[in-house]
Amino acid sequence: MEKWLDVAKAFAEAKAIDPNLFIGFRLAPDQFPFVRQVQIACDTAKLGASRLTGKEAPTYADTEQTFDQLKERIHSTVRYLDGFSAADFKDTATTTVSTPRWEGRTMTGADYFIEHAIPNFFFHATTAYSILRHNGVNLGKKDYLGQLTQKPPA
Amino acid sequence: MEKWLDVAKAFAEAKAIDPNLFIGFRLAPDQFPFVRQVQIACDTAKLGASRLTGKEAPTYADTEQTFDQLKERIHSTVRYLDGFSAADFKDTATTTVSTPRWEGRTMTGADYFIEHAIPNFFFHATTAYSILRHNGVNLGKKDYLGQLTQKPPA
Repeated sequence: MEKWLDVAKAFAEAKAIDPNLFIGFRLAPDQFPFVRQVQIACDTAKLGASRLTGKEAPTYADTEQTFDQLKERIHSTVRYLDGFSAADFKDTATTTVSTPRWEGRTMTGADYFIEHAIPNFFFHATTAYSILRHNGVNLGKKDYLGQLTQKPPA
Repeated sequence: MEKWLDVAKAFAEAKAIDPNLFIGFRLAPDQFPFVRQVQIACDTAKLGASRLTGKEAPTYADTEQTFDQLKERIHSTVRYLDGFSAADFKDTATTTVSTPRWEGRTMTGADYFIEHAIPNFFFHATTAYSILRHNGVNLGKKDYLGQLTQKPPA
């Protein structure tokens, strides 16, 4: 996601427009703008780990207004996630997860991760990507997937 | 995804436009149109299961031109996936996966599923959804997530 911000910034500079204009762009009048898509993608990743393990997550004021501030949000989220190890998730498949919005309803950790956390994370990441693509930023599938863990030909 | 097609069809009928117009809509001139996003979402799900298990997947001519034909593509894909059980995936984390595009490079089954199959599936599903949203179709996050496996309040 950080790479997308860099490509969008270079695109804006080449056209002599303010890159931070992208912050407010959206695909539909009643859908969240770019800044909120990035914030929610970060929060979905953060809360996925936090809700499954019970480890407290950092909170943010959601006041980012520039690409540099969004990058710091991404870095901070990655730092939090880097603090987890596989052992932290040992018993999470059967743990009980809920969110304030669910009004007392619960999900198992496995169902929450598969049906809620993963689809939401990729929803907001893809929508952020699509807002840039829709506005002319030259990104491709490789920028979306990032580096794959591949072995060279035998 | 089938629900999204139904909502888009009702939206088009209420406005007296041809619902199949959506088939060709896209978010950027050099990004695939709606029909291709749905086809690739189906194929990513299909190929994810096929590559991990070695079970042959059905092939399609990619000639869908109507919502009804896209629905049949979705149904056919779901029927194929319904033929799998958990046991089919018992040894897939360590299996070796490759695709014609990778020119001999390989991934483990676990890396392929996490880094490639899941992100691509949600990329194309979300982009299909976003094309409808961008064109005014009244969909929301609940239509994206579908029915969650939740327990009622204790």
